[in-house]
Amino acid sequence: MISGYNFIGFDKRASGEKKVAAFSTVLKNNLPGEFSVATEKEIQEAVAKATTAFEIYQRTSFAERAEFLDTIADEIIQLGDALIERAHLESGLPEARITGERGRTVGQLKLFAALLREGSFVEAIIDTALPDRKPLPRSDLRRMMLPIGPVAVFGASNFPLAFSTAGGDTASALAAGCPVVVKAHGSHLGTNQLVASAIIRAAEKCNMPDGVFSSVIGAGSQPGQQLVKNPQIKAVGFTGSFSGGMSLFKAAINEREEPIPVYAEMSSINPVLVLPNKIKQDCDTIASQISASITLGVGQFCTNPGLLFVIKDENTDSFIQRLAQALQQVPAATMLNESICAAYHEERRQLLSQQGVTAVLHGDDAKNDFKGIASLAETSSENFRQNNALQNEVFGPTSLIVVCDNEADLKNTLQALKGQLTASIIGTVDDLKQFKNCADVLVQKVGRVIYNGLPTGVEVSHAMMHGGPFPATTFAHFTSVGTEAIKRFLRPVCYQDCPHEFLPDGLKDENPLHIMRKVNGEFTRDAM
Amino acid sequence: MISGYNFIGFDKRASGEKKVAAFSTVLKNNLPGEFSVATEKEIQEAVAKATTAFEIYQRTSFAERAEFLDTIADEIIQLGDALIERAHLESGLPEARITGERGRTVGQLKLFAALLREGSFVEAIIDTALPDRKPLPRSDLRRMMLPIGPVAVFGASNFPLAFSTAGGDTASALAAGCPVVVKAHGSHLGTNQLVASAIIRAAEKCNMPDGVFSSVIGAGSQPGQQLVKNPQIKAVGFTGSFSGGMSLFKAAINEREEPIPVYAEMSSINPVLVLPNKIKQDCDTIASQISASITLGVGQFCTNPGLLFVIKDENTDSFIQRLAQALQQVPAATMLNESICAAYHEERRQLLSQQGVTAVLHGDDAKNDFKGIASLAETSSENFRQNNALQNEVFGPTSLIVVCDNEADLKNTLQALKGQLTASIIGTVDDLKQFKNCADVLVQKVGRVIYNGLPTGVEVSHAMMHGGPFPATTFAHFTSVGTEAIKRFLRPVCYQDCPHEFLPDGLKDENPLHIMRKVNGEFTRDAM
Repeated sequence: MISGYNFIGFDKRASGEKKVAAFSTVLKNNLPGEFSVATEKEIQEAVAKATTAFEIYQRTSFAERAEFLDTIADEIIQLGDALIERAHLESGLPEARITGERGRTVGQLKLFAALLREGSFVEAIIDTALPDRKPLPRSDLRRMMLPIGPVAVFGASNFPLAFSTAGGDTASALAAGCPVVVKAHGSHLGTNQLVASAIIRAAEKCNMPDGVFSSVIGAGSQPGQQLVKNPQIKAVGFTGSFSGGMSLFKAAINEREEPIPVYAEMSSINPVLVLPNKIKQDCDTIASQISASITLGVGQFCTNPGLLFVIKDENTDSFIQRLAQALQQVPAATMLNESICAAYHEERRQLLSQQGVTAVLHGDDAKNDFKGIASLAETSSENFRQNNALQNEVFGPTSLIVVCDNEADLKNTLQALKGQLTASIIGTVDDLKQFKNCADVLVQKVGRVIYNGLPTGVEVSHAMMHGGPFPATTFAHFTSVGTEAIKRFLRPVCYQDCPHEFLPDGLKDENPLHIMRKVNGEFTRDAM
Repeated sequence: MISGYNFIGFDKRASGEKKVAAFSTVLKNNLPGEFSVATEKEIQEAVAKATTAFEIYQRTSFAERAEFLDTIADEIIQLGDALIERAHLESGLPEARITGERGRTVGQLKLFAALLREGSFVEAIIDTALPDRKPLPRSDLRRMMLPIGPVAVFGASNFPLAFSTAGGDTASALAAGCPVVVKAHGSHLGTNQLVASAIIRAAEKCNMPDGVFSSVIGAGSQPGQQLVKNPQIKAVGFTGSFSGGMSLFKAAINEREEPIPVYAEMSSINPVLVLPNKIKQDCDTIASQISASITLGVGQFCTNPGLLFVIKDENTDSFIQRLAQALQQVPAATMLNESICAAYHEERRQLLSQQGVTAVLHGDDAKNDFKGIASLAETSSENFRQNNALQNEVFGPTSLIVVCDNEADLKNTLQALKGQLTASIIGTVDDLKQFKNCADVLVQKVGRVIYNGLPTGVEVSHAMMHGGPFPATTFAHFTSVGTEAIKRFLRPVCYQDCPHEFLPDGLKDENPLHIMRKVNGEFTRDAM
């Protein structure tokens, strides 16, 4: 069933000599299937097909694109248990989690389909002509968002479905009207094969143009670089490591004649303030909740809380002990792949070896079993401020507690933080009032601020912001989760004095799509 | 009156040893005033003050910011004729044009003030909590746009008021809630001094924080680079040359720990299709209109039509001759500064020396008089496709006519175009129908497509798009003109389960700002 080819549009190709296998951290051996690494020619052909497909695909109606996305969702469900089992074996994530993630992936596709049917995402703005204005008349100006062209997508290791082949980047780019070339993640090649085949079946069923979707298999960074440097690729979606994201981001600026945006979601340690009155009131409960968030998915979430801030008082030590106890009860669990497991152990070792950092809970070394187990470290606010290495992400179930002297010290320490996806504030109403200035500092550092909750669990909705200042992402203006993610792949075009018959539907007087528009400064769905 | 200092917030500074003068291409001598080039320390202080000011300024109400912008406009008007005269002498632009540009600048500030009073620009999106949802409840998620921090602005040579010290970049950044540090353009140092003093007076009158605005004087690229590399600067607005823009853009990515967006509007030759039936019908009229657009402001507009496409038929030669005649009647006129004038003559020489390019109207060399005069060149479509140098911008009143064989040849040739701010299509209804495919190609290359009009004259309104694919700008998603320009300086932040009292006004249940919001997917101004 798993045959190991590249999808160059509707064609299946395996012309390259280099083959790779899918290793299972669960079974500790290679899974069935021999995967053919895409040749440079195959990558070029995929992009060439995407470029040709764009001519047709960008002119499909929103209803047609919505039908395509819905059909992809249906085809993914049709893959049945084979998908769940393969993704489990390739990622080490439990089947229940994979089943939930499939629901999220399918829901995400359907949410973008609904966004398309509603249609207002094109942000139509119309300023009508003022022929009698003095000293100069005003032209008729009508602006809306159009797709930018073929998009390259790099899936994440930690969400083999929801941030991968048919994940948020692919769904939002296809919704925008952009063909997609996915570089399959080396950790879930079989999962990619299954999902890519589902997308191709949906494209064929919906009469989408050959090239609207391709998937190429890479080994090492070379194929990804070839994809990003291809002049016909107009944007890149990436979720992964800081080094991987930055390498694509810099190549897209420095090694192309035309720089393109790389929307890379990279590195975040997601600070959590645990405030004094709350600790006093609910020590056990919040220790359990934080422990659960740190260890969820073996700590392999972009939003994993890797950094906790507390204020030193008579309850601090017992809170830290309760948290350590809770963490200690969580058994070691299989990590996503061999290299992530090795990196976790090395990053943890480096953190614990920093001056002024003490291990509250050391955790075992389980890397020979491809497993990770929780650790907890502690340091002072002064030490944290002085050592940037304490802000390095440890990708796995490890968190560092920074003990601050008082509110002023905490605020001062938060100012030293780099950009983050999220920050969380756990406190009573009194705490929140007292630490309002600290919350204000956090807002400037993050894309999402969470009150009395933990950062893991990212809702896919209209208001979600999954992004944030560098190094969390390369561009804080955009989100990679939720409907606003579509904006990464759209750009505005203004039509000046365009005869009505040549205007796109979104800008026609009668507003045939019935979308919300801004007409002469007023929001309306009315015809003009 | 013109004293030549840097505005470091409210302080006037001239501590540096290096002094520069303002040369007038009109008077052919230096104007009064000795301008003190900012030292590295002064630049650091300006940014430090902007950073401190941001803490206060980002929390000003929209009404307070609107009042500030309106007061800047009033203070600019209060400068009276002294401003008009100085800008005329420094830029070589006629007083009537400067007066018009002052109106545009003031109108732009007031338009952003109106945008602030309306308030919906923050794009509030609210998804309310679903506590009973299965399998997981949904948190309350509320997202809106917040200012990104201190912004550096580099004014343009060709709009000493509207794209400079108090121009669109400054107006939109201040409206967004971001303090601004302007690097004064070396071509209009006195104009900058006057306008900067008006902004400072407005800031003081409106009780804005010290540092909300600074202006530093540069000589060479060093001060600008220092500004862009300062870690506290969070975005850059730039209008100018390709080399200048790219140097800032690359420094902002490669020479900072935290990359920041440089919104550079750089280089565009603004193709104009002049279609056969229209030429047949209105040869003289369109020749006059195109000539006027090429020579407007001595061709020193970002939107200057530097490239014309025609289809070879029996009327082509006479159209080209009529255009040349019209251009020949336009007298030489003073250019913006010595180096732009020298560059114009050199760029024109290079264009005319390319293989297969013939001079229809050669134009005189008037560079010793700091003047420019119109030229017209002609080439074949094949030659154009084969020689990328024919797409180099000639900044001045020169245009290249590309003669195509037929519609297929035109379409093919348009596909070779680089990104542009604008494209124009001049044709009868029959022409537009026949050349629909060519228009479709153009839409993919540009930010604004103009029907039966010319690209010069950029409306400042809601629907304007003054931007476009590279190399026209560094980021095709954004405009530098019109109210949407504010989006460059805002980023989204999501508040999750935030207690009501800590929410910003834009996200409160009762919608105190009465702004348009997207609540659970529905657009509404209603309270919740």
